[in-house]
Amino acid sequence: MKLLPDAVKAFIDGAHVCRIATVREGGTPHIIPVCPAFDGDRVVYVDVAKDGVTARALVSSDRITAIFDEYSDDWSKLKAVILRCRAEQVQGAELEKAWELFRAKYPQGQAIGWEARHTLALRVGGWTEWGLVHPLGYQPE
Amino acid sequence: MKLLPDAVKAFIDGAHVCRIATVREGGTPHIIPVCPAFDGDRVVYVDVAKDGVTARALVSSDRITAIFDEYSDDWSKLKAVILRCRAEQVQGAELEKAWELFRAKYPQGQAIGWEARHTLALRVGGWTEWGLVHPLGYQPE
Repeated sequence: MKLLPDAVKAFIDGAHVCRIATVREGGTPHIIPVCPAFDGDRVVYVDVAKDGVTARALVSSDRITAIFDEYSDDWSKLKAVILRCRAEQVQGAELEKAWELFRAKYPQGQAIGWEARHTLALRVGGWTEWGLVHPLGYQPE
Repeated sequence: MKLLPDAVKAFIDGAHVCRIATVREGGTPHIIPVCPAFDGDRVVYVDVAKDGVTARALVSSDRITAIFDEYSDDWSKLKAVILRCRAEQVQGAELEKAWELFRAKYPQGQAIGWEARHTLALRVGGWTEWGLVHPLGYQPE
């Protein structure tokens, strides 16, 4: 995989929301918004409901695609990064590391008792971006 | 299908961006941001690149899922609607109708010569929402 450029890493790191898509058994796509934490290199951590549609979809396929994007009505300012990943439930030391990142980035989680449910490492295997390094105008994929 | 409540319809209608997920041949999910136009009932129109990943994915599966959501760092204010749809390329009178909606909603398209590429009707077959009619807190699917 091409390394992620610094401008793309900064965009991922700064995002408080991204959307992740999975494929349900039977072939229907699913999407949810999640609060991501980035390891600064090539892993995005997210925490999803234990028995939700996303967790169940991952039983039959670990493929997950995340989009980080910012919309503007000025279409010359559109920005997006698409990450094609494999999802893996994290355990042990990596789980601790993920939750250090979550707690630092989302202090509001403490007030509602947000703790690990089904915490995933999204390991990036490929990516596309526009508006950060390369312009694309109004014609995304 | 349960009818969409008025609050959900208004949320969809007001959105200038949503994200749509498809399943590529081979089973990898894909997501892009798009500018939607809503017919006010149960069809969302979007226009995607003719030879992009989304258009190619739809050759092997017409299943598409759209998410309309608003993020807030105050997690009690999270709002989202997930629409499970079948995509159909529109033609004729329906294509004209879709483009009347696009032109009215996105006047900035005129300046860059935005015209029909691969215009899709997303026909809603099922949906989920939170933060509009039902609360969900911080635990989406």
